[in-house]
Amino acid sequence: MHRTKVKVVAEALDANNTIAAANRSDFDRAGVRVVNFMSAPGAGKTALLERVLADLAGVRVGVLEGDVQGSIDADRLAGLHVPVVQLNTSPGFGGECHLDANIVRTALPSLPLDDLDLLVIENVGNLVCPAEFRVGEDRRVMVCSVTEGEDKPLKYPLMFRTCDLVLVNKIDLLPHLEYDLDKLLYNVDQVNPGVERLLVSARTGEGIESWRAWLMGIADREGTLA
Amino acid sequence: MHRTKVKVVAEALDANNTIAAANRSDFDRAGVRVVNFMSAPGAGKTALLERVLADLAGVRVGVLEGDVQGSIDADRLAGLHVPVVQLNTSPGFGGECHLDANIVRTALPSLPLDDLDLLVIENVGNLVCPAEFRVGEDRRVMVCSVTEGEDKPLKYPLMFRTCDLVLVNKIDLLPHLEYDLDKLLYNVDQVNPGVERLLVSARTGEGIESWRAWLMGIADREGTLA
Repeated sequence: MHRTKVKVVAEALDANNTIAAANRSDFDRAGVRVVNFMSAPGAGKTALLERVLADLAGVRVGVLEGDVQGSIDADRLAGLHVPVVQLNTSPGFGGECHLDANIVRTALPSLPLDDLDLLVIENVGNLVCPAEFRVGEDRRVMVCSVTEGEDKPLKYPLMFRTCDLVLVNKIDLLPHLEYDLDKLLYNVDQVNPGVERLLVSARTGEGIESWRAWLMGIADREGTLA
Repeated sequence: MHRTKVKVVAEALDANNTIAAANRSDFDRAGVRVVNFMSAPGAGKTALLERVLADLAGVRVGVLEGDVQGSIDADRLAGLHVPVVQLNTSPGFGGECHLDANIVRTALPSLPLDDLDLLVIENVGNLVCPAEFRVGEDRRVMVCSVTEGEDKPLKYPLMFRTCDLVLVNKIDLLPHLEYDLDKLLYNVDQVNPGVERLLVSARTGEGIESWRAWLMGIADREGTLA
């Protein structure tokens, strides 16, 4: 039974990687850079996109919104006048807990890839399985809210280990928490030494210009944009 | 491909239910009531257990701690002098995102079931898959932190729909958040009308006596305990 299960899982991950590579080819052909954006539920992914997507100084951006059910986040982003496509994972498995390469692939015909420089894929809120499934992304960004405690890198190591940027969000709440920011950053370095990190608050705007600049730097692969 | 996947998933859930029923028989034979305790990462499950488990007025309690990796939470509870067994899901699938009936079953020989009235199973922090896998529990309790936003019942409906108690935690932070508690409770009632809910703060102790009383009520199946 266990060996069968391991085999099924290995085959599923192999199949996923094959489709992720196909996605990547399509993204490269269209000249679009792709960010897989991940966090626990309620860490502030959508709020951090609301803060920056309307003004990326010439970078043409689109969004894939992944949720188990509903279109709350896509509706929030609709006012930004960027292309947004909602993906719901609920038809499978009583709600898949992550996006995989195949579900992302089903959305590609709905996106004007040739007219984009950057695609942000907002994953399902979950610190485990989203880290296991490549979707064809160039970069992985995760949001870690200071309300979640300092121990999360040690408890969800794959997520922290495989990301290229950690956004430490809700820092406006630090005065009201018993939270040791140095301990969090120490734990981040334990699993992903030296990984880039930005301290931000989607609510007050602190650190948001750095987040905007990071995204624009990813999109500007030839260094020709302003 | 899709049909194969659905079949594999259906078979996995069937197998899980069979083992969950076996767990339930063992729990019943030992006279122990079981709570499956779930939430998003960092919502405060362990802190809410720390608050009550040391003093349940005669109820003999044990804990199963589920984590992808590490024993941080089990170590935190060790000082309470109750039996705690750590389960790590990392050997499977690069880290399973939930406990299933089988992994719980592997831990049962390590627990003094006959000497317990109550077993609390702290699940992996995740609002999706833990709700899909019964482990043999009598009751499901979920923690929803006010820092996560009011929309979570609508985005993770299965978790909210299948629980028997919602603990709304971190209410001490309400003065520092733009959070509409009525909207959260309205959304909870949209997916699970009338479900029991308690407003609590593991930090200040507000609401903790009600949470303690709820747990003791579950354990006291014949109504004979003080």
